[in-house]
Amino acid sequence: MAEGKSLQALQQALGRLPGVGVKSAARMAFHMLQHDRAGALRLAQALQEAVERICHCQLCNTLSEQPVCATCQDGQRDRSKLCVVETPADQAAMERTQAYRGLYFVLMGKLSPLDGIGPQEIGLQRLFERVAPRQGAEQDPAERPAVQEVILATNFTAEGEATAHVIAQGLKSRGVQVTRLARGVPVGSELEYVDLGTIAHALLDRR
Amino acid sequence: MAEGKSLQALQQALGRLPGVGVKSAARMAFHMLQHDRAGALRLAQALQEAVERICHCQLCNTLSEQPVCATCQDGQRDRSKLCVVETPADQAAMERTQAYRGLYFVLMGKLSPLDGIGPQEIGLQRLFERVAPRQGAEQDPAERPAVQEVILATNFTAEGEATAHVIAQGLKSRGVQVTRLARGVPVGSELEYVDLGTIAHALLDRR
Repeated sequence: MAEGKSLQALQQALGRLPGVGVKSAARMAFHMLQHDRAGALRLAQALQEAVERICHCQLCNTLSEQPVCATCQDGQRDRSKLCVVETPADQAAMERTQAYRGLYFVLMGKLSPLDGIGPQEIGLQRLFERVAPRQGAEQDPAERPAVQEVILATNFTAEGEATAHVIAQGLKSRGVQVTRLARGVPVGSELEYVDLGTIAHALLDRR
Repeated sequence: MAEGKSLQALQQALGRLPGVGVKSAARMAFHMLQHDRAGALRLAQALQEAVERICHCQLCNTLSEQPVCATCQDGQRDRSKLCVVETPADQAAMERTQAYRGLYFVLMGKLSPLDGIGPQEIGLQRLFERVAPRQGAEQDPAERPAVQEVILATNFTAEGEATAHVIAQGLKSRGVQVTRLARGVPVGSELEYVDLGTIAHALLDRR
């Protein structure tokens, strides 16, 4: 039987990946040690570099190597619109529709009280300040003109809807228009897996 | 959109794992960077250590940290029997039946000419020498008494059967008994996923 602490440690570490169970972890470990040791070392290095270098964009909260990500730096974008999504994957789906040229705020999660994820954990306070900065806070008006519309593009699941509702409530008094993707997106599904045409339509019909 | 070379490199490296596609790789990368950076670093370290330390057992060819694995070193085992399996996972399945106390030879693969895997790649020559060492080769008789029976426990798939056939042919002239697991194991299935009782039965009925 294959044995040894290194192998066990590797299988356990692989088993922590989402969607990987005990048998998959064993297969991955055997595969890499047998057929792809170079790939294993590359993966090790990629993991270390990613953990070292990737932090959150100061403006939109997505994962980024720079303090401000390329999307937020892009001068061509319509800075009066801010689209709120749950994950970078959702943001990527929005981008692929090519129907939106505004900015983003990535929650990196959704409200889920049962899992202990409240407004604090998904940075809602940061979002509110991003939309309407506190009076007196230092602000370069040329850099960040006021957001006029917030488009809520959280998933159409129970938690996503709840998150959208809480954000809408929090933005009520801040003098911005708050819209939600039209319900062309099938209820109960996740944005990442919806076809592009549906997302594009939902974007046009936002209410 | 989440971006940066580190993230791309990480997703590509994860995508090389067996059974992981583009979307799974992205989910894994986001999950680790968002929720489990400690786990990511542990995985990086485990990969490096495993690649550095794990080699093949000189006797049975399985993955091992020592030159000779613990199973081959075990003095309690019946050294006159040698069970040939395809992978360490198959060996583990054999071990769990507790119906076999002999030694193993792990091919770490199977004959598969279409994939360019021939007798050389799965170390058949090493197996033949392990069973009946060349005359004149240095040999400590106390350490390695002659193998009297080779039990072919390759999978009951087309490639596994072909591999068993080739091994049986190769051992014909070497004066050892060659047996095959009884066909109690369902045809077309892989050993790793068969229930223990079936494997134990097949072991008793070997022909």
